[in-house]
Amino acid sequence: MSGTFTLVDVGMRDGFQPIAQMIPTQRKIEFLHRLHAAGIRRIEATAFVSDAAVPQLADAAEVLAAAQALPGLDAQVLVPNLKHAERAWKAGATHLAFVLSASEKHNRNNVKRSPAESVQEYARIVDAMPSGTKMRLNVATAFDCPFDGAMPPQETVALLGDLVPIKPDAEICPCDTTGRVTPDRVAALFGEAKARFPDSGRWAYHGHDTYGLGVANALAAWNAGVTVIDAAFGGLGGCPFAPGATGNVATEDVIWTFEAMGVATGIDLDLLLEAARAAALLPGGLPGGRVRQAVDAALCLARESAGQ
Amino acid sequence: MSGTFTLVDVGMRDGFQPIAQMIPTQRKIEFLHRLHAAGIRRIEATAFVSDAAVPQLADAAEVLAAAQALPGLDAQVLVPNLKHAERAWKAGATHLAFVLSASEKHNRNNVKRSPAESVQEYARIVDAMPSGTKMRLNVATAFDCPFDGAMPPQETVALLGDLVPIKPDAEICPCDTTGRVTPDRVAALFGEAKARFPDSGRWAYHGHDTYGLGVANALAAWNAGVTVIDAAFGGLGGCPFAPGATGNVATEDVIWTFEAMGVATGIDLDLLLEAARAAALLPGGLPGGRVRQAVDAALCLARESAGQ
Repeated sequence: MSGTFTLVDVGMRDGFQPIAQMIPTQRKIEFLHRLHAAGIRRIEATAFVSDAAVPQLADAAEVLAAAQALPGLDAQVLVPNLKHAERAWKAGATHLAFVLSASEKHNRNNVKRSPAESVQEYARIVDAMPSGTKMRLNVATAFDCPFDGAMPPQETVALLGDLVPIKPDAEICPCDTTGRVTPDRVAALFGEAKARFPDSGRWAYHGHDTYGLGVANALAAWNAGVTVIDAAFGGLGGCPFAPGATGNVATEDVIWTFEAMGVATGIDLDLLLEAARAAALLPGGLPGGRVRQAVDAALCLARESAGQ
Repeated sequence: MSGTFTLVDVGMRDGFQPIAQMIPTQRKIEFLHRLHAAGIRRIEATAFVSDAAVPQLADAAEVLAAAQALPGLDAQVLVPNLKHAERAWKAGATHLAFVLSASEKHNRNNVKRSPAESVQEYARIVDAMPSGTKMRLNVATAFDCPFDGAMPPQETVALLGDLVPIKPDAEICPCDTTGRVTPDRVAALFGEAKARFPDSGRWAYHGHDTYGLGVANALAAWNAGVTVIDAAFGGLGGCPFAPGATGNVATEDVIWTFEAMGVATGIDLDLLLEAARAAALLPGGLPGGRVRQAVDAALCLARESAGQ
């Protein structure tokens, strides 16, 4: 293991998005401040998407502005197509996250296009974007598709073969959308991808904790040389229609683990846990993660034995 | 990775033990039958300990007899000292699990002896035991102590240096009692121990999921060549005084992961999940694990979309 660890907290996008109850913009901005105070320096703050499809993120411009006002914070925003990328630029976005799916069926379901059409859309965004804009490329269902099951690594790597040349310095993030990938397959895909694109060099990993492998898979990515890890404070991001199908791996679980392994993250776990506790209290939120519960249980016991 | 995977379900001992509400013996025997029907062939069925200290396991003799009646089942029972080992033999036990702690403070707290005194007690049990008795040696706090924090691997290996010669064919199981170990340290301890005792050859791993690393650590043990993994159906084993401090890694999470990685476990996940669901309904039980919830959420969604 080597390199500098970077945590990208995606809770305000991937975590808030499925929450039906509207979170007031001011409350979102408080979360931004909490995460920033805890030392998190990269946040997927929101998405520019259809307000009708995702009313929770209709305040994207305001949230982005608040994020960009925080010193040293790199705020990325998700965009599914050129139209919404143009909205993001208008709002001042300097770091986009474009998403497409490796699986044909999932991409059609998500953005009503074939993966090849999404590749063209990505090229149009890269052509149109203001110079200096940073690009994160999220490849959903890179390992496993809810409709088609396991994705052969060759298929994902073949799709990357179309995507990487469009912007070789983009940060590429294969995403485990279903939470069903295992650490051996995380290692295998990154091994193949890094061998195929030795010069692209900027890799990230995004995983879910649905089957309890969130941290194990993040570690597998790290051991494969991936230094940028997505996670969501409070483990937000579960499917609101499937209670128990938990969401993104919890940022606090990832930070706890890497710090326990001696990897400096620059993040204050106590302050991060405050944000996670607040996330767990969000009406309609579906929190996850283990560390918050374990730490709170220990605090509770300590208070009791101190007679408090 | 290689070798034959063996799952030891410890839910009926480590999982039932902290449950204050008495589980009727007949109910326990039903759990035995469920686990056996799911294909589990090694179970820590109960413990012979002080009835006053652990009233939940006062029916040890009856549960052991029921376990030994199941075809092909290897039933081990935990014993803390010679006195209780003698009770176990009288009840027909043929597979003991002796437990001591690597940490002085934890061992004194648990069995009111120094580790060196426990080593002597272990030698007395080995001397006295009927020929053909199998021995599992559980080394609690092998990685981390709730009182003293991280255990240096040299200390644990030094203790093994006293223990291994007493019965070189015993199965040795370093236990992560607190759930705070990380996969790198699991790998490091097994690396050192296996290098120091190249001929003992029988290793097992026992871990908890308190900080979400239960499966990650089991995989680290497996990757270090350990083929015997402890787990508890339903993730039972949490501390009743600390809600949220979850218990043993869930058997169903371990089985789901290994099967997903292509390791044949011989265990029927659907039948195992039935046992895990029943465990989650035990009054006073503190269930854990992810796979049960994820599978149930998916089943629930499928029923809804089928209009059921």
